[in-house]
Amino acid sequence: MAESVLTGPVEIVGTGLIGTSLALALRRSGLEVLLEDLDPDNVRTATGLGAGRAARPEDSPQLVVVAVPPAHVADAVRAALDAHPDAWVTDVGSVKEAPLRAIADHPGRDRYVGSHPMAGSERSGPLAASAALFDGRPWAVTSGPGARAAAVRAVEQMIDLCGGVVVRLSPYEHDRAVARTSHVPHLISSLVAGTLAGASADHLALSGQGVRDVTRVAGGDPELYSQIISGNAPAVAALLVELRDRLDLALDAVSGGDRVGLSSLLAHGVAGTRAIPGKHGGPLQTTVAVRVAVPDHPGELARLFADAGDSGVNIEDVRIDHDPGRLVGLVELDVTAEHSDELIGVLESRGWVTHR
Amino acid sequence: MAESVLTGPVEIVGTGLIGTSLALALRRSGLEVLLEDLDPDNVRTATGLGAGRAARPEDSPQLVVVAVPPAHVADAVRAALDAHPDAWVTDVGSVKEAPLRAIADHPGRDRYVGSHPMAGSERSGPLAASAALFDGRPWAVTSGPGARAAAVRAVEQMIDLCGGVVVRLSPYEHDRAVARTSHVPHLISSLVAGTLAGASADHLALSGQGVRDVTRVAGGDPELYSQIISGNAPAVAALLVELRDRLDLALDAVSGGDRVGLSSLLAHGVAGTRAIPGKHGGPLQTTVAVRVAVPDHPGELARLFADAGDSGVNIEDVRIDHDPGRLVGLVELDVTAEHSDELIGVLESRGWVTHR
Repeated sequence: MAESVLTGPVEIVGTGLIGTSLALALRRSGLEVLLEDLDPDNVRTATGLGAGRAARPEDSPQLVVVAVPPAHVADAVRAALDAHPDAWVTDVGSVKEAPLRAIADHPGRDRYVGSHPMAGSERSGPLAASAALFDGRPWAVTSGPGARAAAVRAVEQMIDLCGGVVVRLSPYEHDRAVARTSHVPHLISSLVAGTLAGASADHLALSGQGVRDVTRVAGGDPELYSQIISGNAPAVAALLVELRDRLDLALDAVSGGDRVGLSSLLAHGVAGTRAIPGKHGGPLQTTVAVRVAVPDHPGELARLFADAGDSGVNIEDVRIDHDPGRLVGLVELDVTAEHSDELIGVLESRGWVTHR
Repeated sequence: MAESVLTGPVEIVGTGLIGTSLALALRRSGLEVLLEDLDPDNVRTATGLGAGRAARPEDSPQLVVVAVPPAHVADAVRAALDAHPDAWVTDVGSVKEAPLRAIADHPGRDRYVGSHPMAGSERSGPLAASAALFDGRPWAVTSGPGARAAAVRAVEQMIDLCGGVVVRLSPYEHDRAVARTSHVPHLISSLVAGTLAGASADHLALSGQGVRDVTRVAGGDPELYSQIISGNAPAVAALLVELRDRLDLALDAVSGGDRVGLSSLLAHGVAGTRAIPGKHGGPLQTTVAVRVAVPDHPGELARLFADAGDSGVNIEDVRIDHDPGRLVGLVELDVTAEHSDELIGVLESRGWVTHR
């Protein structure tokens, strides 16, 4: 990072979950933060949390961050460029080409640099905000062709201050990337979840962890995701067409008893799961799941993790399996293959029932 | 449960993960277990684990459990009925109509009762087996119309001894249920994962927890799942047609800018996620995620769970978010909404950075 260009004040337009979290993170670094929201209650709540003070017409922010609902981003960016002719402007919306196109004719377009943090919550509003929301999260920076270098640097410094990890992509590449890694998986998850709505309870009793995983993101706010996905329509539609073609292939294979063809489609999926970058962006490690039966009451998880901690083996991931009918949970601890015997040995020696 | 009808010996045909786990669970209860497998190495490994002894031609088992790969279940059930004219026979395959149809003309068909444990592992073979594999898992019992009551009772006692939870369904209902709760979610997860294969690394850098969840099951063995899904072709195909129609609706809504239509499809998905039974089969509780930043080295999770345990708040679920680029993990602890402030208070007082 070059010399510090971001000195504030920073104005946040939209004090929902993301805007207020951003404000809290910048306040943590000592920057002056100005808050604006159509709903004065939100601003009052955010200021009460220590996220900054209400913006005034005479304020002259160095950087304006637009954090309004997806459908209103472009208008709010334009308004910010108009209101503050010397300020840099960014936004934190989920799509990046549309706002850039919407300000293509604006004389201040070189002061705008889009960005998109990969962070969120199933909760919303300023009360759900946290300065830690962006810690370690990828945060795309999507500068358009004419963007000023100083504006890009300021936005990247803001991301640094929030603990985010800068990922530089063109707006076009960004929108295609999130269509693939976020919007289409979300939409398809919703369609699969939709097949469960209205299913009989004795059928749903056979639900395991797999279907819970596949449908978890489908629990998100329909109105919000409808705006997000609609804002990235061309990229999403192109991928949906591709998916529909592969669904037709799968349907043909299933209906026609073509087990080899079906297996090849499934193998393509295995390759896809391996393409997702591993923890901390490093190569994927081969982990194995060590399963432990844990009574479902307070303190048992603590005891388990204390015992696991004593083994010195790093736990890469944890899942708790929700079993119907019994007050016992299966906890899956993912550890690297080479360390699993060590962990099992320690846990078994302390009375845990484990299996791989 | 009525008087004990299952006294053994029990013969297990197929000493892979499921067969050997079942054998270990039955040995735990003191039953005599006889092991058979096309591969004598598997039998040797399983006997070495204490799962029973190799079956001999003169053995006369009370119950035979067929635990062979999906495509061979029907033949193995028929062979077991032939070889042991007084034995009850069950299987643990993932589809239940096909084997029943395959033995419809067999004079011993009333001695056969299908079953299906909702348990597995991404590992396979006898070395991955565990007596605890079935603890708390739903286990479908799918008796056909003419099945003898004593055979049904014996199979249900076997499930009890293994710690499984009996779910009674007709073979027809079972196959439709698992198409919906397992086979179609798996297949669609594979198709979504397939769209990631070959994507560029800078696009995949934006992968968050959502796409990881949606695609996790797609990492399973293609050959095994191809057999499973093919064995349930009619039910899977019917649901795939339904899904394709909804995918077309979604595509129309996205391409046509119909945000209301898209929102309604997404809302249908939300209803589906709520239809999945909650932990332990009870009603779904409203949980909120408390997020905690945890340094990624051994002992930190133990410290977190010890502190969380001291709060007395029960943790309903745990996720570890894999963040690229930083050696810090975000751990999400799901707790009931009414207890989240309590947990946050305790954690913050001990120096953890939390947010909801």
